[in-house]
Amino acid sequence: MNSDFEFLLSFGKSLRDRRIKKNLSQEKLAAEAGLHRTYIGALERGEKNVSLLNLKRLADTFGIELHELLNFNA
Amino acid sequence: MNSDFEFLLSFGKSLRDRRIKKNLSQEKLAAEAGLHRTYIGALERGEKNVSLLNLKRLADTFGIELHELLNFNA
Repeated sequence: MNSDFEFLLSFGKSLRDRRIKKNLSQEKLAAEAGLHRTYIGALERGEKNVSLLNLKRLADTFGIELHELLNFNA
Repeated sequence: MNSDFEFLLSFGKSLRDRRIKKNLSQEKLAAEAGLHRTYIGALERGEKNVSLLNLKRLADTFGIELHELLNFNA
């Protein structure tokens, strides 16, 4: 696995953990963040090189600061 | 100014402050991060919705954690 993919996958896993802790389905998180349902699944599988604005939307949806969303074990 | 642009601009300004504190030119930061020189300028002007992998490259170049790079006043 190349290191870029590994990094995106570790972010995806942290996103998934956070979503599950909040009892949110991928559909619900997507709807609240204004993102497409399949995009959340792809993010969690490390298939998307997510943008800063989408990261901000996700952080806002979780009610946390952007830097908290990006404080994960890569 | 729409809020997305304002957010990207505040990130750009924090990036610029960090670069200047390290006495790095845009060219030098770009070369060390493996990014194009003009991309750094556009980022600092809030013209780019930067990706997670490029954020990681910038954080690595500054020798800081990703969440530190994204801990700025939006």
